[in-house]
Amino acid sequence: MKNVSILGSTGSIGTQTLEVINELDDFNIVGLSANTNIDLLEKQALKYKPQIVAVYDENRAKLLREKLRIHNIKVVSGMDGLIEVATEKQSDIVLTSVVGMIGLLPTLEAIKSGKIIALANKETLVTAGEIVMAEAKKNNIDIIPVDSEHSAIFQSLKSGAKEEVSKIILTASGGPFRGKKLNDLKNVSVFDALKHPNWSMGRKISIDSATLMNKGLEVIEAKWLFDVNIENIEVVVHPQSIIHSMVEFIDGSIIAQLGVPDMKIPIQYALTYPARKYSSTKKLKLTEIKELTFEEPDLDTFPCLKFAFEAIKQGGTMPSVLNAANEIAVKLFLEGKIQFLDIPKLIEKAMLKHKIIYKPNLDDIIESDKWAREYIISEYNR
Amino acid sequence: MKNVSILGSTGSIGTQTLEVINELDDFNIVGLSANTNIDLLEKQALKYKPQIVAVYDENRAKLLREKLRIHNIKVVSGMDGLIEVATEKQSDIVLTSVVGMIGLLPTLEAIKSGKIIALANKETLVTAGEIVMAEAKKNNIDIIPVDSEHSAIFQSLKSGAKEEVSKIILTASGGPFRGKKLNDLKNVSVFDALKHPNWSMGRKISIDSATLMNKGLEVIEAKWLFDVNIENIEVVVHPQSIIHSMVEFIDGSIIAQLGVPDMKIPIQYALTYPARKYSSTKKLKLTEIKELTFEEPDLDTFPCLKFAFEAIKQGGTMPSVLNAANEIAVKLFLEGKIQFLDIPKLIEKAMLKHKIIYKPNLDDIIESDKWAREYIISEYNR
Repeated sequence: MKNVSILGSTGSIGTQTLEVINELDDFNIVGLSANTNIDLLEKQALKYKPQIVAVYDENRAKLLREKLRIHNIKVVSGMDGLIEVATEKQSDIVLTSVVGMIGLLPTLEAIKSGKIIALANKETLVTAGEIVMAEAKKNNIDIIPVDSEHSAIFQSLKSGAKEEVSKIILTASGGPFRGKKLNDLKNVSVFDALKHPNWSMGRKISIDSATLMNKGLEVIEAKWLFDVNIENIEVVVHPQSIIHSMVEFIDGSIIAQLGVPDMKIPIQYALTYPARKYSSTKKLKLTEIKELTFEEPDLDTFPCLKFAFEAIKQGGTMPSVLNAANEIAVKLFLEGKIQFLDIPKLIEKAMLKHKIIYKPNLDDIIESDKWAREYIISEYNR
Repeated sequence: MKNVSILGSTGSIGTQTLEVINELDDFNIVGLSANTNIDLLEKQALKYKPQIVAVYDENRAKLLREKLRIHNIKVVSGMDGLIEVATEKQSDIVLTSVVGMIGLLPTLEAIKSGKIIALANKETLVTAGEIVMAEAKKNNIDIIPVDSEHSAIFQSLKSGAKEEVSKIILTASGGPFRGKKLNDLKNVSVFDALKHPNWSMGRKISIDSATLMNKGLEVIEAKWLFDVNIENIEVVVHPQSIIHSMVEFIDGSIIAQLGVPDMKIPIQYALTYPARKYSSTKKLKLTEIKELTFEEPDLDTFPCLKFAFEAIKQGGTMPSVLNAANEIAVKLFLEGKIQFLDIPKLIEKAMLKHKIIYKPNLDDIIESDKWAREYIISEYNR
């Protein structure tokens, strides 16, 4: 029996994780957390009977606390509450699928308290990859990626030794605007930008997929997760999202992981790793898919991907700035306040303005993140 | 330093193996063998200075013996000679790339004397898979496939445990006649049949590729090599020969090995296994290939593949009959004596006529092989 805590249990990855656990017979939920959706969190708590539940907002936490009192489920709040769930004594695995910088501290604390990390929070590695991986190494902790691309790489790496890897090849669907040029993207609507061709995802990540920033953040994550030079990471556009990513070895062999685009497969692998368990997900039939295609990413039309490579090459606090600037720009776009093409423009401005702190500590990272958010808001308000 | 003996060093795989070894700095040749091409064998012997060289034909062996005497290289002949090379005390790895049933006994003897087997001889597993794998298990010997498809499966299997495998998916280029119907194939010439779209191979295997018998024999090999039920082996036609084969696991993940169609990659992997070494072979660029396509094999037009599944399902000596009947039918076709479509017809006749011996010993297998050869000749002469 493995005990699991889920940070962000009401989101897309969180709810799919619970569906995966429903099908596995040897997993037990000991902790859950959510940001705003306390109705769903209450239902989850009543179904899975965890020891502890966290709600970030204290007022919402209070409401839920009343309801769950008679069920003997502890309800905590704020960052301290999240950390309490992340470090809950009984849990073996912490799946962190909260969205945003808020995931960083709880993940670090979970690592320090010896939990296996099933990582679905991008910001953890994008902003503090060096610190997080060092901490994981120190505590001898496995960080198992949940993201389909990183899971594919993680699985493909089993076919050789670390020093035999020559290249990491991340595949990208290209998003809803693949093939479009800058001119075509001037007036796209939020509705259009949310239409991902293959995956059903949250709103923020759907926009990141439309700008290719999603792939850029994944490149940075891959750099830290697999300890490879950024020069050895490549992005290939593969619209069908069937090959989830690849590893090239020094002998010319490429190992790839393929499957239907269903997050339940990488979620389950992260939970059952190193074992694989039977899954009822649809099986891939290549003769039904018929063709897989590949093209180079168009960095002129989708400069966010270029910015991400640039940010990690510059290093230090620059990836945090890239990430925070993007988060706010996407928020402004989703609120209808800026145009689609303003997203990369704002990010580029922030990156040009930022004074990098090299070898940053956590405070430097959080400070840079805050700076970038404020900078984007002030630029928008000008 | 690893010492290698190559059985069949003058053939397509043999010469490529030597090219691979030229690029690796820690391999030494201790034994070589050839069937007819003693001029090339002499050159190889002078270059690599093996301890021992075998020529199957005693008259040719005599000629070579004269020439190599002053170089202190022992020249042996016949089946005894081949076995002497296969069991040469100093060798660590025996690469068996002889074509035909002649490879079976030397491979078995090499296993018994504790050599790692790099297997490129199809007949060994097709005809005597059960016996050979049992012997390998008994002697705790690795049998490492050289064939690109089996090498791909071997590499992909590293990503999970044996009991987690749900399916082996062999890819097939479809050969030069892919898309053709029976009517189109009535009058094809030997020249047309030899035109393989992707791989440069020997003549016999090129015809097998045109009839899809090659894939059929590989299915049987895969069954023994990876110990899977025949129901869990699938063939997918993939004309670009970029995905060399795949493994589906119970969780819905498919792991695949990809690369340019160059036999040097799987040959090198078989030699350096479990390590990978740098190779100067061309690297795969999927954005240059642009698309990979997949289709079901056409069993009506290419019944040889169906016969192979049938033969291994029936079991016993039937695969030996399939293989021997095919070998003679292909020979007759290459000699211009029969038509392309006579190949499957003759094989089917032999299979219908054969009385299977179940749980055959080596003599039964060799006897069935001989029977099938004679049967095809007699059918041709009728």
